[in-house]
Amino acid sequence: MTPPIFILVRPQLGENVGAVARAMANFGIKELRLVAPRDGWPNPTAEAMAAHATYILDRAKVYATLEDAVTGVQMLYATTSRHRGIVKPVVTAREIFSPLPLGGGSTTAILFGPERTGLTNEDIAYADALLTIPVHPEHASLNIAQSAVITGYEWWVSQMETPNAITRNHKRKPSEDDPNQSPASKEEILALFAHLEGELDNAGFWSVAEKRPGMVNNIRSLLTRAQLTGQDVRTLHGIIRALKNGK
Amino acid sequence: MTPPIFILVRPQLGENVGAVARAMANFGIKELRLVAPRDGWPNPTAEAMAAHATYILDRAKVYATLEDAVTGVQMLYATTSRHRGIVKPVVTAREIFSPLPLGGGSTTAILFGPERTGLTNEDIAYADALLTIPVHPEHASLNIAQSAVITGYEWWVSQMETPNAITRNHKRKPSEDDPNQSPASKEEILALFAHLEGELDNAGFWSVAEKRPGMVNNIRSLLTRAQLTGQDVRTLHGIIRALKNGK
Repeated sequence: MTPPIFILVRPQLGENVGAVARAMANFGIKELRLVAPRDGWPNPTAEAMAAHATYILDRAKVYATLEDAVTGVQMLYATTSRHRGIVKPVVTAREIFSPLPLGGGSTTAILFGPERTGLTNEDIAYADALLTIPVHPEHASLNIAQSAVITGYEWWVSQMETPNAITRNHKRKPSEDDPNQSPASKEEILALFAHLEGELDNAGFWSVAEKRPGMVNNIRSLLTRAQLTGQDVRTLHGIIRALKNGK
Repeated sequence: MTPPIFILVRPQLGENVGAVARAMANFGIKELRLVAPRDGWPNPTAEAMAAHATYILDRAKVYATLEDAVTGVQMLYATTSRHRGIVKPVVTAREIFSPLPLGGGSTTAILFGPERTGLTNEDIAYADALLTIPVHPEHASLNIAQSAVITGYEWWVSQMETPNAITRNHKRKPSEDDPNQSPASKEEILALFAHLEGELDNAGFWSVAEKRPGMVNNIRSLLTRAQLTGQDVRTLHGIIRALKNGK
């Protein structure tokens, strides 16, 4: 899926145009269209706010009317928080950017309205669906930059190989070039267990002999959960020695 | 799941504190904690920016240190974009707020660093995992308000009935009825650090004084990675005592 086009309809503050451009850059979205920006174009305030994303402003196209601005667009979504009694499908960003989206493979554009008033019913009439961002009903006012951040974010996440994969990241990634950062070998781990458990034997740690096997398992489990590196294992050996011999 | 707590660590601009509060209100998140805000507290600039969310600022608690601010927290996530060579799990907001999250049912808090520098390694050492927001690698700079918007949004969406129809059954299920199996509180963890580091001080463990801070961070990180339960913490206290007094 190609990235969506962001279309700002009669944007008011240059800062907000710049903030939208930043959000677009953060999430790999490149094409910005402006419909009748209030303060003209180009706009130095927008440039200042855009920071690393001025290239998006430089390429932005300006149109007199929304009708002109939707050239080439196949699926058009209108962001709106209010229910307007308009009969159109209501969708979320997560839905439209899902792997098999409505109208998948088409050129998609998202409309963002003027800050103060939002999109008019006339603007919305062009859209295939209303794009809504779920918010707390008592505090439903998202500004245009926040809406752009969330919409852009959902686009970017949808393009990741497994946006929702739960297992993916829970295991720490070893930095394979740094041996200190790579997981300890099982031999190292077992030697650590032997060292610790031997010292605990010497210290009379197991008040009741029958409890030893269960406690050993618990201690091994907690050390295993930490996914120790080789360096961690050396540190722990040092700690055991220091505590035993110290003072 | 109760909403996460947002903790701003040494925030710089009042505007940003206000913007974070707005994002919290938009997404039903209520508890804000501030660690050593640069411009003092209360902050009129924050109030002005917060708009409808001043009630969150009014209730915000201010702490001198991060250590004080994590009271009552069980699962702590540090937002960071950079890879710091710290060995911790890297997770996304979507993952941690999934219906069966790691440590589900626990009190969760999200750390946001100072705008200019982000969290230090010392800050991060307290965290159970690094929270990363997927962004375009060439434009990876998200500001604190954007990070808060996305994190808050993912929390809110996770509480909707069917945020997305992905099966999520890989996570460890919280055993809510067995307090021994639920994550240790941060107070318990901090007391464990204090006990261990104090004994290592007594034992002259730090051969070179300058190395102490880095080694302390590493030790804290490896203990945090193990996601210790209350029972684990008691076991480790016992091990430290036994090694020290034993023989």
